[in-house]
Amino acid sequence: MFNIVHRIGIQAPASRVYPALSTIEGLAGWWTRDTTGQSKVGESIAFTFRTKAGAELGRFDMEVLELSPGDRVRWRVKSGPADWVGTEVSFALAEQDGMTIVLFGHRGWREQGESMSHCSMKWAVFLLSLRDLVEKGAGQPCPDDVKIDNWN
Amino acid sequence: MFNIVHRIGIQAPASRVYPALSTIEGLAGWWTRDTTGQSKVGESIAFTFRTKAGAELGRFDMEVLELSPGDRVRWRVKSGPADWVGTEVSFALAEQDGMTIVLFGHRGWREQGESMSHCSMKWAVFLLSLRDLVEKGAGQPCPDDVKIDNWN
Repeated sequence: MFNIVHRIGIQAPASRVYPALSTIEGLAGWWTRDTTGQSKVGESIAFTFRTKAGAELGRFDMEVLELSPGDRVRWRVKSGPADWVGTEVSFALAEQDGMTIVLFGHRGWREQGESMSHCSMKWAVFLLSLRDLVEKGAGQPCPDDVKIDNWN
Repeated sequence: MFNIVHRIGIQAPASRVYPALSTIEGLAGWWTRDTTGQSKVGESIAFTFRTKAGAELGRFDMEVLELSPGDRVRWRVKSGPADWVGTEVSFALAEQDGMTIVLFGHRGWREQGESMSHCSMKWAVFLLSLRDLVEKGAGQPCPDDVKIDNWN
């Protein structure tokens, strides 16, 4: 199994970062605007990615595994692209030096190929979007996300 | 062993991306301005990271393992932070859909901890800098790099 791991610091207390990871409105502010479902342990969240014209590009359904206020959020991919199904996404928070450090993980990839490489780069771009949402009040969620290659 | 892998597309032919990866001037335009040495197979390149005031923050010495014009660049870390020594950094180029896809790898990490997580995020930011250099004529090399956390 292979893992994507990233570390980013956000100039805000964990109590302000956590809602961006644990509420539908927060997630829609930095990952994809079309975020629906229930952010409760055992429930599911649907993340749908669309073009600016509204055409569906892809969709991930995540089961919420853990919601620890100010500390950690963890999901399991229930459906979506074949190489995502069964993988786990997590965000762990820690306050250091006046900022909140987010340790991001997307774990359980079966192949370390171009798809994972694309997703690693794309997660980094979305984590910058998360930071902008918390620090500046607006992120760049899909369809306004920063495009990184010919797959997005 | 653990690997960082990223994929980014640059709107330019591989013949314009390759010099940014294979010449001292090119590397100084997106990674760190203080890049010295010789970009020849078997020789070494020194990448020194400094504050804007000029204080040294860190330095990596890379042995050039491969220089395949328009195709691939590969280095091995000879000296630097302990967890970087012995790891390999590579850039593989392929033209697709009117752009050049860069497959980036930093392979051979012995631990998948916070240091690797930091570097994964930081490499993503530097690959955006590489893209800006090639597409727009100017990147954000250190000390003008985008800061990502309390370690940089």
